[in-house]
Amino acid sequence: MKPLRNIRLVLAFDGTSYHGWQIQKNQETVQGELREAIREITGEPTCPVGSGRTDAGTHARGYVASFATVSTIAAPNLVRALNSRLPPDIRILSAREVPADFHARRSARSKVYRYQIYRGTVMPPHLAREFFHYPYPVQMERMEQAAALFVGPHDFASFAAKGGGRKNTVRHIYGCRLKSTGRRLALTVEGNGFLHHMIRNMIGTLLELGRGQMTMPAFEALFDRRDRTQAGFTAPAHGLILLKVRY
Amino acid sequence: MKPLRNIRLVLAFDGTSYHGWQIQKNQETVQGELREAIREITGEPTCPVGSGRTDAGTHARGYVASFATVSTIAAPNLVRALNSRLPPDIRILSAREVPADFHARRSARSKVYRYQIYRGTVMPPHLAREFFHYPYPVQMERMEQAAALFVGPHDFASFAAKGGGRKNTVRHIYGCRLKSTGRRLALTVEGNGFLHHMIRNMIGTLLELGRGQMTMPAFEALFDRRDRTQAGFTAPAHGLILLKVRY
Repeated sequence: MKPLRNIRLVLAFDGTSYHGWQIQKNQETVQGELREAIREITGEPTCPVGSGRTDAGTHARGYVASFATVSTIAAPNLVRALNSRLPPDIRILSAREVPADFHARRSARSKVYRYQIYRGTVMPPHLAREFFHYPYPVQMERMEQAAALFVGPHDFASFAAKGGGRKNTVRHIYGCRLKSTGRRLALTVEGNGFLHHMIRNMIGTLLELGRGQMTMPAFEALFDRRDRTQAGFTAPAHGLILLKVRY
Repeated sequence: MKPLRNIRLVLAFDGTSYHGWQIQKNQETVQGELREAIREITGEPTCPVGSGRTDAGTHARGYVASFATVSTIAAPNLVRALNSRLPPDIRILSAREVPADFHARRSARSKVYRYQIYRGTVMPPHLAREFFHYPYPVQMERMEQAAALFVGPHDFASFAAKGGGRKNTVRHIYGCRLKSTGRRLALTVEGNGFLHHMIRNMIGTLLELGRGQMTMPAFEALFDRRDRTQAGFTAPAHGLILLKVRY
């Protein structure tokens, strides 16, 4: 019997055409495309494990997935073979063999996301796929202050999509930084995990605060209130990019 | 009779879905989309004049067009009205009234283009629309030297698409600069005008030189030879972006 190898992949995708990572019936998903490509190459009915779900329309620069195979194809050849079968909006950036106990989701220590906003009046076509258009005046200083308050272990129940059904809504945010470059605004956030829609709700809340639709005390009270209706709107998925998963 | 106003527009477009600027039968073109939008708003059968043709698939950040109208709609309202009718991959960035003798093509002094190349092994999906994938080792120094040689008035017959039928193939290049940033390479070139496929052929020639498929003396002889078959390949259209038209 051939030994089972555990392969770790790093991938990038443009999420515009996909209903997120996870396989769903009658929907195009990144996991579904990858599973098919792996099957074609290895002839094995293996299914890749991802570092976590992603929302429909969300992008990735460094998503991590792993799969088990008895195939002996060398890792660099796997990259080429998979890319030749995957659509151009999903690319394998690297592949390497890892110990059997590596698990793309359970082994993850943290994830780094970026959310991109364009503040100009007219949305430039070349940014339209990855930037949320928010052409309103905002107070940057308040937003920067508020972004810093996300850091630490907090109960993010107010920022979780309703019906998520998670009992434990505490997450640890290691870093949260807002950067303004001309008309572009980007929030980079790293944490040990994120609830469903959590980052998109954090963004909507920061924008309402920056626009003066929410007060700073009301913002600070959100962690204790544990009430989704008190936080801001859910910013659209296409501004969100998974940059990196750390192990 | 209402006075005729001359309106100057600056527009950006993602050229992926268009057969270039100029109206062609049974093809989607930027000029065609813009003409329809202007007609819907003004009710006049006017046709916008552009600053020049662009190749199918080529992009623009600052294309200039002008049109005559008796409509009294204020310029800022024209921007909003046109954008509400145009597809999202064509955006009007600004509109203003200009003297009657302004002509988007004939009044142009120079145009600035950028050509973008990605040199990494795997093409990241978010760059795929605007970068040409060229994953081969190149000698940057030779390419930089050669790029500088394009500056000045030269006969670009060797770089013009065959069958262009232009008698005068002399063009004046005011600046030509190659910049390398990580795995990205960009050539920015400004000139008083460009022959059909000229920039794409300049790029293909620079890459062949950088890869060692052409010698420096052979490169330098291209201006005198006036022979398209001696220059390099035609780089694909999707790496080319019209940045600006100067008047």
